[in-house]
Amino acid sequence: MWANHSEGRLRVLLVTRVSGLEEELVNRALPGIDLQRTKKEPDTLKALADAEVVVADPVLVAHLLDQATRLKWLQSTYAGVDTLFTSCSRRDYVLTRMKGVFGPLMAEYTLGHILSRERHLPELYRYQQDRKWKPARYRRLSELVLGILGMGDIGQELARAAKVFGMTIWGLRTRRESLPHVDRLFTPDQLADFLSGPDYLVNVLPSTPATRGFLSGEGLKACRSSAVFINIGRGDVIDEDSLVRAIQEEWIAGAVLDVFPEEPLRPDSPLWALPGVTITPHVAAFGWAKDIADIIEANLVHYQSGEPLDHLVDWKRGY
Amino acid sequence: MWANHSEGRLRVLLVTRVSGLEEELVNRALPGIDLQRTKKEPDTLKALADAEVVVADPVLVAHLLDQATRLKWLQSTYAGVDTLFTSCSRRDYVLTRMKGVFGPLMAEYTLGHILSRERHLPELYRYQQDRKWKPARYRRLSELVLGILGMGDIGQELARAAKVFGMTIWGLRTRRESLPHVDRLFTPDQLADFLSGPDYLVNVLPSTPATRGFLSGEGLKACRSSAVFINIGRGDVIDEDSLVRAIQEEWIAGAVLDVFPEEPLRPDSPLWALPGVTITPHVAAFGWAKDIADIIEANLVHYQSGEPLDHLVDWKRGY
Repeated sequence: MWANHSEGRLRVLLVTRVSGLEEELVNRALPGIDLQRTKKEPDTLKALADAEVVVADPVLVAHLLDQATRLKWLQSTYAGVDTLFTSCSRRDYVLTRMKGVFGPLMAEYTLGHILSRERHLPELYRYQQDRKWKPARYRRLSELVLGILGMGDIGQELARAAKVFGMTIWGLRTRRESLPHVDRLFTPDQLADFLSGPDYLVNVLPSTPATRGFLSGEGLKACRSSAVFINIGRGDVIDEDSLVRAIQEEWIAGAVLDVFPEEPLRPDSPLWALPGVTITPHVAAFGWAKDIADIIEANLVHYQSGEPLDHLVDWKRGY
Repeated sequence: MWANHSEGRLRVLLVTRVSGLEEELVNRALPGIDLQRTKKEPDTLKALADAEVVVADPVLVAHLLDQATRLKWLQSTYAGVDTLFTSCSRRDYVLTRMKGVFGPLMAEYTLGHILSRERHLPELYRYQQDRKWKPARYRRLSELVLGILGMGDIGQELARAAKVFGMTIWGLRTRRESLPHVDRLFTPDQLADFLSGPDYLVNVLPSTPATRGFLSGEGLKACRSSAVFINIGRGDVIDEDSLVRAIQEEWIAGAVLDVFPEEPLRPDSPLWALPGVTITPHVAAFGWAKDIADIIEANLVHYQSGEPLDHLVDWKRGY
């Protein structure tokens, strides 16, 4: 399936800022692999001209790929590969991505923020500063509906974790097939029905032409007015004006936002100070060097043996 | 097993401040039951003189029970019945308690505070006020050991919820029998070994002569210096001076405290402002009227039919 490699060794260009990943891969001393590493963009650009196999953070290479005339395979260190679609027009190489490593972290983030909000932790932290003893009632998670936009590996892991607290799970996905832990499944044409139920609405959709702006305009008007929108997918599923409006018009009660159309979120964005809105700096799921290296290593072995690669991106679907 | 009831009807004295419980029980119109309700202590005292069956919050009746000369059965609306041991010397009646209704709420509280701490939510809330975009690394729960002091129904529910996030679970209990979700089980004589592992140490022990002051003195010296102590059991498992010392001497890194030897926590307690300490006002697990009423109703039916009651308190064990 793959071209021959000179002298049986495979040169792999590694361009990443994922904490500890470079060290992890170097330390593994993968058999038959020569790791070439670049840090600065001019060096990366030069190395790309000659590279057949690249392991990279999409944001570090997408705009340079036109120069990679010999590129056969790019292994993304991220789950989201949208930059490779938007900053580059090439579709003539094999693209693989991360999968299965971010779900548990996304679940931690989502449940952590839901529990913090339901249990009034921000208020309790303030009361403590004033040495104030002030109990307040709360809802229990078993009374709440969690709606998940995007039922891939991350959405399914989220459903599994939320279910342990007895939440009712509604999911939205393109394919209509039942999934464990999901109480009701909707397709995109049933969006308004889907939005009418959840107390928390979590977006984990990838960024594709089909999902960009999916909730923009009056999309969130179908939500319960008490609903909270959590975005840990991609920031462009809704434009900022639409989101601000949804909160100001009280279509929804608030939001927990980890991703934005432009990051870092600019200091003058109205989102920072909007009531009911929590802003976090794209931290829902950091890559763990070991997990990512495991997937890279497995795929390098596949490549060397001419086997099919794991977690192939479908250029048509966009993820 | 039980005495005859005049005219086939059972009079039940109900003394509770659990939100909505009185209404819930009244609305159920339990067959054959006459609910007598008192709010003020003099009325309660008077009614107790004549009462055979009492459903009550322990704190509202414990100090009055010497007057309840006809008392046969008391159904506590709480899981913790220690007040009935400490504020009253009588052991000549049947005592039943709540069980199985607080575990899920305790799990929400515990995981919520663990996730808030690990994901730096208090810092992120402050950064947001300053419109500051500042990502920081965090640990994932699957790297952490949760130690649970007390593996009854609450401890087991906690283990089940923490396991979904991949936490390693260590448990301490009197009986040595394996439990689902628990990776290592210790007995009280192995306390120092048990304490040496957990990143989070959660106390859900009831208050009994055996558990009072169990961690006082230098008990927490055996912990990891990075450990955080979470107390959702009873406040008297460790005295305040010992806890303050454990944190000041850096035997542990902090605490999340929901229960205290005296509540409300007095404004001049050093705990309020100790670094690494979170104080909450005994809110980990509120009683939900419906759940509590279900247990009361089931036990009233048992009592009326002369069947054994659920969730009997063992006067010797103390819970």
